[in-house]
Order: sequence, then structure tokens, then C-alpha cells
Amino acid sequence: MSALPPGSTVGILGAGQLGRMLAVAAARLGLRARLYAPEADPPAGHVAPVDRGGWGDAAALAAFAAQVDVVTLEFENVPVATLEILAPLVPVRPGPRALAMAQDRVAEKTFLSEAGAPTVAFRPVDDAASLERAITELGLPAILKTRRLGYDGKGQARIAAPGDAAPALAAMNGAPAVLEAMAPFAREISVVVARGLDGATAAYDPAENVHEAGILRRSAVPAGIYDETRARAQAIAAQIVAALDYVGVMGVEFFHMPDGALLVNEVAPRVHNTGHWTMEACAVDQFSQHVRAVCGWPLGDPLRHCDAAMENLIGDEAADWARLSAEPGAALHLYGKAEARPGRKMGHVTRTSRMA
Amino acid sequence: MSALPPGSTVGILGAGQLGRMLAVAAARLGLRARLYAPEADPPAGHVAPVDRGGWGDAAALAAFAAQVDVVTLEFENVPVATLEILAPLVPVRPGPRALAMAQDRVAEKTFLSEAGAPTVAFRPVDDAASLERAITELGLPAILKTRRLGYDGKGQARIAAPGDAAPALAAMNGAPAVLEAMAPFAREISVVVARGLDGATAAYDPAENVHEAGILRRSAVPAGIYDETRARAQAIAAQIVAALDYVGVMGVEFFHMPDGALLVNEVAPRVHNTGHWTMEACAVDQFSQHVRAVCGWPLGDPLRHCDAAMENLIGDEAADWARLSAEPGAALHLYGKAEARPGRKMGHVTRTSRMA
Repeated sequence: MSALPPGSTVGILGAGQLGRMLAVAAARLGLRARLYAPEADPPAGHVAPVDRGGWGDAAALAAFAAQVDVVTLEFENVPVATLEILAPLVPVRPGPRALAMAQDRVAEKTFLSEAGAPTVAFRPVDDAASLERAITELGLPAILKTRRLGYDGKGQARIAAPGDAAPALAAMNGAPAVLEAMAPFAREISVVVARGLDGATAAYDPAENVHEAGILRRSAVPAGIYDETRARAQAIAAQIVAALDYVGVMGVEFFHMPDGALLVNEVAPRVHNTGHWTMEACAVDQFSQHVRAVCGWPLGDPLRHCDAAMENLIGDEAADWARLSAEPGAALHLYGKAEARPGRKMGHVTRTSRMA
Repeated sequence: MSALPPGSTVGILGAGQLGRMLAVAAARLGLRARLYAPEADPPAGHVAPVDRGGWGDAAALAAFAAQVDVVTLEFENVPVATLEILAPLVPVRPGPRALAMAQDRVAEKTFLSEAGAPTVAFRPVDDAASLERAITELGLPAILKTRRLGYDGKGQARIAAPGDAAPALAAMNGAPAVLEAMAPFAREISVVVARGLDGATAAYDPAENVHEAGILRRSAVPAGIYDETRARAQAIAAQIVAALDYVGVMGVEFFHMPDGALLVNEVAPRVHNTGHWTMEACAVDQFSQHVRAVCGWPLGDPLRHCDAAMENLIGDEAADWARLSAEPGAALHLYGKAEARPGRKMGHVTRTSRMA
């Protein structure tokens, strides 16, 4: 196992804002980046070359693989089959197993339970009968979600009373689903954790997160939790990446319950929106950390040297760039997206302050 | 006077590591970068498109100007004539006047004196007679330097005794020169200052610098100076950019004398090696600050949220990347240069720590 030297090329599947920030992190370490994406003129194309191709285009993927020294990804919904085309050609980190787990809520929660990471209670739902049984076992209220391809609150329906069951199931459009017990959490926190090729792990401080309409609104460090809770969340995150033999950065979202319990809500096998604050507050941010991990470099120190609060700029909120750029102590990030559609993440702003 | 909106393109003359870091800073703000340089495969070419052309190639420069919304520069030895070709086509910031001043040590020191910024005593030297007169007036030891194109200790000769005068003059190869009195300083400090299109100024904390063999070895904040000295250095730097009607970031190097006086050693009309620590220690670093200034954006807050020490990686020191990348609390930057020539800046490492 040897580290890829400076001058090597990191291949990235996907070329949105996460790919863009990964490409910049690679450049900072003297590495080159090359991206692969189906879209024309994606955000990452401003900072690195992008090969355009479909996720099932074996020839285009092979040509891409020939140009890079390792492949990683910026989003978890790359088809597993794409990684399986690439894996014989070039190291793929993280590998297909982590992706397959993260793409299916039932596989994810089953894996997490087996890895000793507690989750909310859940039941697979395929039809009206299994939904009725699940409601009986978990009680109401509960949330019905599609097993696959859910993000930013899409593909979810709340079931507060038995009469909500049929419309919720209809909203799944026939897709396999999962019923999850409601978690009346005190707060949402997340840990961005990294695991190196050598098996070392490093976890950043937990961020406290606020979602609005299913989309992350803000993440702040420190979270309003005791040291013991911080350490426990970091330990669970490290346990998850170790159990997966994972390489790279992973975002682990938790519900912090009123009794102090931590339930894993979901994991994302990639750099994570709740870790953007590390760009200002840590010597090695989550993007550099991910690049280090997938290139076989030593992990960087996740120590935080200031307090920080990150706020997403969603849709036309980014039109406020002039005012935001004038705000003292604020670091503005814009992703180079031409069109500000509602719900689209256009940028973020991180406010830093000296540690108490 | 209006700000260039996100999506605009910043043109940068020169495509070395400073251009590379400027291009990344532009991307972070949702701006595009495009560079212009004579060399093939320059470092900045990994993160942005580069137009290749000579400094006097009016057609290539005009084609470049047509692709960008503003032009700035990464190094002060771009010929003034190049800026004069560009200036009628596109806003050039900083403009030819600042460049002309910074390219000639006599013009620079004359300007500084007139702007109320004290410098070491100096005399123009064109021949043996003027050198002899200068030595009589300034005393020995003194340093003879070429008036133009000096950097990193090149084009300099120390005159300790009268017998050194003739060889020192010969070392100038007939180029116009300047004799500078020696400044037996207590320490070298520098201030990276910015001035916006609206005339606002913002100065980072002074860094304390150590040079070796004429090349910057390290820069640390805080410098070992009193608050009064910090404020005075920042005020002088702000005075200089105001007197020049300057737009952008400027590096101002000082000698801090044992009696507390601050003498300006030299200024650089660009982002500065002694300001690289701002990447880890400030919400808005010097590269973002420069991009903001030349695009007519509000300046960012220069507040420092942690202590930091930057060390350059020169020549084959960068071969030590694996060890450096494993060092806790260290942020490693490599510039993507293929060949590690002696004296060549290959990267830097910044070590951060919480503020006391």
C-alpha cells in the first residue's frame, strides 16, 4: 500500500459543488483532479477537466479510468454498476460495498445495527399489508420513505394517523419503501469521519444541524452537547467506517435524544454538507481529508481552531451575495451555478469566531 | 462603480503558484478565472484555463482581454507596456502606475518617502563616481542593488569596505543601481493590506518574517511586537495604498528597528508570500481579498482567528511531503510544479494553533 505522490490525478465521479471543492483540495496538495459527469458545464468544470459521459457508458468510463490514478465520488447515488465497471481498472475508494449500503435505507439500517450503531426502529414496506403490519409494530406517528434515491427530504411521507397510510404509500409510486419510527430528538448532530488506507480514523467535532423543509439550513460547531456525547458520537462514527473497511470521508447524521441516546439517522459515503465549516475552522478540511484518504496519504489532524457556523444559500438566497460578502467575519462560498432554482444549493457562508 | 457579479471572469497575468491560488479563490466566490502566461504547463493551468502568449504580443493580449471582465496580476515584473496594451480594453487593477513604482527601487523609495512612509537612506548609482559619492554620504556597510527586476536576493551585493565597491558595481552588469544604507533591524515584519475600489482599506496582522539566503523561510503571526507597533505598521501600509489610489492586495515589508522605528523595505503590488498564513487563520484570506478588491466587491474582514506560522518548502524540501502531511496541525500546500530546482518555491506548510 503506497501513497500516490504529488502530480497524481484524482478521478471524481460527479462534478457538482462537492466535486468542485474536492478538485480544489486536490490542487492544494499538488495533485491533479479530473471529473466524470453526465451533465454539460457542471460547477466543477471551472476548476478541473470534466469527462462527460453516462453512468453506464463503459467505454467512456474506461477512458476516464485511464487518465486517473484513483477514483472517488462526490455523491452516493452513482450506480453501483458504475463502480463495478471501474474497479478492475483503477482503485475505487470508497468501494461498491459502502455505496450499495448507503443507497438502500433498509440495507443501511441493517448494517448499522449489526455494526453496533443504534438507529430508529424500522420495517421494510412493499405493499399495503406490510405497511399495516409495520404501523402496528412501530406505532404512529412514523415516516414512510423510499428505500432508494432519497435526499433533501424527497420521497418521504409522514403518517400521523391510520388514514394517512394509503396516501403515503401512493406517494412512493410503487417503489420499495421503509417505515421509520419518529424520533422526537432534542437536536440533530453529525460527525464527519475519515478512514485512511492504513485503517486510521479521524473524526471532526460534531456539528449541530438545523434542517428546514428537508434541506440543511445550518451547521454549527461546537454543538450544544457534553464532551461525553461528542466522544460517543465520534466513536460510533469511527466504528461504522471501520466495520465497512471504508476509505475516505463519511458523513454520519445522528438524532440526539432527550435521554442522551444517539441514534444514527443516515450515513453519506462522501464529503458532507455538515462538514463545510471545516474549511475555515481546521488546518485540514474535509475535502483535503478525503483526498488524503483516497490517495493513501496520512490523515490530517481534525482539530478545530475556532468556532464556526455554516449556513446554506438556497435558491435565490445567493442573489444576496453583495450583502453577504460585506458581512464582517463571514466567508462566502458560491458554487458557480448559473441558475438559482428553488431548493438548489447555490453556495454557503461560514461565520467564524475565536474559541471561548 | 459596480461590482462584477458571480459568473464574471477574472483575468490574471502570470500563472505560477500565486496565480493558482488566486484562481482557486475566484472559484470559491463563484467567479471564473483565466490566466495569461508565456510558459507551457504553468502551475495555475491545473485549476483554470491559461492563454499562452508573450508579454508584448498585442494580439494575444487583446484576445485574452476579450475573455475576461477585469485583469490583475500575480507578479510585479509584468512589463508596464503590457498593462498599457490591456488598459484601454478592460479594467486593469492594480494599474500601470503601481507597477511602474514597484519595478524600480529608486521610484519606489522616492514614492514611499513622499507618501510619508519612511525607508532606509538610498542613493541612485549609475557608475563608479556616483557609487563613491553614495558611499561617502551613506557610510558603510551598505547594499548595492539593481534598480529593476530584483527578487529573492538576486541582483544584490554587500559593500562592507571600500574595496568591495568595484566588484559590487561589476556584479550589476551595467544595470542602473541603487545603494541602500544597511538597516541593523531587530526583526522583519510585513503587512498585507488591501484597498477596495471604493477606497476602503483592510490590513491583516503583521507577520514576523525570517529570510535565508535572500528567500523567505517563514512568516509567523502574531509578530513579536507591541500593539502600538502593529497599529503603526498597518497605518503606514494603508497610507501607501491610499496614496497610490491602489486597488487590490499589496505586501509591505518593514524593518523594525531597535529604537522602535519602522522602515519600509519594499512593497509588492500583489498577493504576498508573507500572507499565505491567512489561508488558515482568517475567514477571508489574502487571495479572496485580492479577488474581492479587483472585482469591486466589499473587502472581507481581515480578523485573525488563530495563531499561525507558515514555512516555505524550497527546492527538494517538498520531497518531504509524506512526513509533512502526517504532522498534526499542519496544513500542507504544494504548487504542482514538476521540477524541484534549488531555490524554487515548491509549496508551503502552515501550522495553526489556538490563540492564547
